[in-house]
Amino acid sequence: MKRKITLKHIAKELEVSISTVSKALKNSEEISRDTKEKIQAFAKLYNYRPNNIAVSLKNKRTKNIGVIIPDIVHHFFTTVISGVEKEANSKGYNVIVCLSDESFDKEVINMEMLANGSIDGFIMSLSSETQQKKDYNHLKEVTDQGIPLVLFDRVTQSVDCDKVIIDDQLGAYEATKKLLNQGKRKIALITVDDYLSVGTERTKGFIRAHKDLGIPYLEKNILKMPTMEMEEGIIREFLTKADYDAIICVNEIFAVFGMKVAKETGKKIPQDVSVIGFTDGLLSKYANPSLTAIAQHGELMGETAARMLIKRIEDESDDEFPFQTKILQPTLIERDSTIN
Amino acid sequence: MKRKITLKHIAKELEVSISTVSKALKNSEEISRDTKEKIQAFAKLYNYRPNNIAVSLKNKRTKNIGVIIPDIVHHFFTTVISGVEKEANSKGYNVIVCLSDESFDKEVINMEMLANGSIDGFIMSLSSETQQKKDYNHLKEVTDQGIPLVLFDRVTQSVDCDKVIIDDQLGAYEATKKLLNQGKRKIALITVDDYLSVGTERTKGFIRAHKDLGIPYLEKNILKMPTMEMEEGIIREFLTKADYDAIICVNEIFAVFGMKVAKETGKKIPQDVSVIGFTDGLLSKYANPSLTAIAQHGELMGETAARMLIKRIEDESDDEFPFQTKILQPTLIERDSTIN
Repeated sequence: MKRKITLKHIAKELEVSISTVSKALKNSEEISRDTKEKIQAFAKLYNYRPNNIAVSLKNKRTKNIGVIIPDIVHHFFTTVISGVEKEANSKGYNVIVCLSDESFDKEVINMEMLANGSIDGFIMSLSSETQQKKDYNHLKEVTDQGIPLVLFDRVTQSVDCDKVIIDDQLGAYEATKKLLNQGKRKIALITVDDYLSVGTERTKGFIRAHKDLGIPYLEKNILKMPTMEMEEGIIREFLTKADYDAIICVNEIFAVFGMKVAKETGKKIPQDVSVIGFTDGLLSKYANPSLTAIAQHGELMGETAARMLIKRIEDESDDEFPFQTKILQPTLIERDSTIN
Repeated sequence: MKRKITLKHIAKELEVSISTVSKALKNSEEISRDTKEKIQAFAKLYNYRPNNIAVSLKNKRTKNIGVIIPDIVHHFFTTVISGVEKEANSKGYNVIVCLSDESFDKEVINMEMLANGSIDGFIMSLSSETQQKKDYNHLKEVTDQGIPLVLFDRVTQSVDCDKVIIDDQLGAYEATKKLLNQGKRKIALITVDDYLSVGTERTKGFIRAHKDLGIPYLEKNILKMPTMEMEEGIIREFLTKADYDAIICVNEIFAVFGMKVAKETGKKIPQDVSVIGFTDGLLSKYANPSLTAIAQHGELMGETAARMLIKRIEDESDDEFPFQTKILQPTLIERDSTIN
C-alpha cells in the first residue's frame, strides 16, 4: 500500500507552511492562484484525502481518546487531563495525550497523526497560534469526517462541535468586585493579549465590575502579556512603575511572582496589596501567603468533556443530537493574599 | 480480520488480573497450575501473540515516540516531557504521552495499545505499583519484539535496555553534607517507601553523608511516605512531634508544605530550620522563602532519553550496540531556605 500523504508531507515537499497547504486545499482567497494550483495538483497526484481512514473508523472502535493541549507547564491543563483520565477509564477508554506547544503546525501534525485510526474522538484546547491565525480547517476536516470533537477552555465559534468552557468573565468580575467592595481603587490586572479568548473574557469581567460599581478603572494598570509564558522582566518592570493596591492575574504563576515583587518593594500582603490569581493549583495552595484564587475546575472540565465525547462516540442513532456548550461556574477560593 | 486479542482482553474474559495473565503466559511458578492451563488454553484458542504487529513495525516507521509516565502532577515529569518533545521534534518525531497513574494495569494497557503499531519506540518511567510487584514481563515482551525502550528515573535492573537516571544518592548526600557542615545535627528526612527506587537511593545518600562525617543520624527523624502523593496529615503529625533543625524532602511539594508547618510552629527559616527539596520546579522557585533545591534536570533527562531512543530506532546495522545507562549529576540550587 502506498504511504498515505498528509498536509505535513505536502508542506514539506513544496516548501510552504502547513497553513498555506490547508488554505489552498480549501481554495482560500488568501492564497495566490499560482500556489493554489501547485498545491492542488500535488495533492491530486499523490491522492491526498483528508483523514482518509476516518470512514473505516466508524466500524472499528479503538477505545482510545486523543487529547491535544497547548502545554503542560500550567497546572490547569494537567488537572484537565486527570479529569479526562478518570471519566474515560471508568468507561473503558484509554487516553493519549499530545502537546501542541502553542504551535499551529504541531496542533495540525498531532491531529493528523491521531486521526489516522488511533483514536475514536478528540478533546482539545486550541493553541495560541491557532487562535491568532484563526485557521480552523484541520478541526473542520476532522468533524466533517465524522470524528467527534470536544473543545475546552480555548474554543472558537467557527467550529460546530461540543464545547466546555468556564465563565471566565464571571471569574474576573467577581474577583474585581470583591476587591472594589473592600475599598481597593487602583487594581492592577496582569492578563494576556486579546487573541487568546481567556484574555479577552477576563479583561471584560474586570472592566464590567468597575462599570457596575461606578468606579473608573485605570487603563494604565492593565498589562497584557504576549503569551501565558512567564516573562519575569515584563511583570517586574510593570509593577515597579505602577501605582496599585491590588493585583489580579490571569494565572497563578504570574500572581505568585507578582506577590514576590510587591513584597520586595516593601508592600504588605494583603494589607497594602491584595492579590488574586486564576488557576488554583499547587502554587496557589502552597504560596506564602497562600493565594486567593479563582478555581477553574480543570478536573471537572476534563470529566465533562470526556462524558460529552463518549456519549457522542457511542451514539448509534442516525439523527445527530445538537451540539452543546457547557459553561462551568468559577469559584473564588479565599486564602491569605486578600482580606477576608 | 479477527480483532487482535490483548492481555487486557484475556484478563477481563477470565476475570483475573492482568498481572496473573502475564505471569501465566510466562509459565511463572507463582500462578497455580489450574489457572495457568486455563489462561494458556484461552490465549491459544484466540491466537494471542504478544504485540504481534511489532514485526511489521520494523518496516513501517511511524515517526512517533510513546512516552509513559506515572503522573503529571509532579513538575519533574512535565519537564521530562518538554525535553523529549524538544529533541524528538528536532529530529522529525511526534510524541504521544500516556499516563500509568502509578497503576500496573494502566501501564500494561497503555503499552499494549501503543505497541500496536502507533509508535517506533518507548520512553518510560515505571509506575510505583510495577516497582512494588516487580513484574516486568510487559517490558520484556516489547524489547523481545525489537521495539526499542528507554527507561528513565524509575528503572529496573531486570530489563535489558537503555536507561537514563540521575544520581539520586549523590543528590541526597550533598544536601545532607551541606546541612551537617553548617552544624545541623537533627535533620529530618521526608522520603518515600523503599519500593520506589528514588526513595531507597535518597535515603542511602542521607545515611552515607552522616557516616562519612562521623555524625549519627536519627532513625526517628526519617519519615517514609507511602507514595509520592501529598498527604498533609502524615507530614504535619510527623513534624509536630519531631525535634529537628533541618528538613530534606524527596519532592518539592513535601518541602514547601514542610516549610509551612515549621513556620506555623514559630520556627524561622532558614535560621531555626533549613529546608531542601528535590525537584527544583516552579514551587521551589516561587515559594517564600524560595526553596533550596536539588535539581533533577528533567528536561536534560528527557532530551537524553529521546536521543538514545532515536539512535536505536534509526540504527540500521545488524549488530546491536550494547545497552547504555547514562547517569546525570544532580545540582544543588541554593536559595533562601538554607543559610548560604
